[in-house]
Amino acid sequence: MRLTMYTDFSLRVLLYLGVQGKEKLSTVQEISDAYGISKNHLTKVTHELGKMGLVETIRGRGGGIRLNVAPDQINIGETVRKTEDDFHLVECFNCELNRCVITPVCRLKGVLHEALDAYFKVLDSYTLADFVENNEKLAAILLGE
Amino acid sequence: MRLTMYTDFSLRVLLYLGVQGKEKLSTVQEISDAYGISKNHLTKVTHELGKMGLVETIRGRGGGIRLNVAPDQINIGETVRKTEDDFHLVECFNCELNRCVITPVCRLKGVLHEALDAYFKVLDSYTLADFVENNEKLAAILLGE
Repeated sequence: MRLTMYTDFSLRVLLYLGVQGKEKLSTVQEISDAYGISKNHLTKVTHELGKMGLVETIRGRGGGIRLNVAPDQINIGETVRKTEDDFHLVECFNCELNRCVITPVCRLKGVLHEALDAYFKVLDSYTLADFVENNEKLAAILLGE
Repeated sequence: MRLTMYTDFSLRVLLYLGVQGKEKLSTVQEISDAYGISKNHLTKVTHELGKMGLVETIRGRGGGIRLNVAPDQINIGETVRKTEDDFHLVECFNCELNRCVITPVCRLKGVLHEALDAYFKVLDSYTLADFVENNEKLAAILLGE
């Protein structure tokens, strides 16, 4: 059971932009350099975060990206729900493709949903602010400050 | 975020053998027919469940498989931990391969662990008995009783 690399990188971009603060612009190259991960991947990630309304892109010379909303408005559970393809723990979670014959009477399905709900209840209780505020050590590593 | 097909099928095999009861033997063919899933997959699954000590194989003519332990001794969280390859939600969960530079100061890692713990706390609170006992409808579908 894993989150996608795409979710992992999305969260890292948000952490980076979160420690940068709301106004200052960053470039994908800077984020790529800070984490040592592919610029191509990050370009796609930031594009998608833009479509979600979390990241704003300023075009042109001296342009870059920054958070479009305050860190305390970026809920982690909500973000992960959007960046993951799906949360189909088992076949019956996908109503369209499910062919499991015991679905109508299977109590396991409900328990797996209960477990997934508990997982999200934790993520839903945090925002990006919880990870970037008063975290000078994070800023030091990412921004070299 | 998904569980593997292997975990899904393992749980289905355990449900089948659970409704069969401890003594009666089943064949992989019967389980394959009941769920409409590949016999080849189920052969591998039952072999692995055997190695985990959950399923017993009686060889020879009239042989088959059955649970090796009582349903109330088969914990769901424990079983899923064994059938999944790993629970590396993000890169830093894998100590050997992790290259994320912010790991020492990243609070997100702790929160993802907290979410995973909440997920398992639910699964750990159930055993196979919770799904198969007094579930005549499940037996009716799987065994045609």
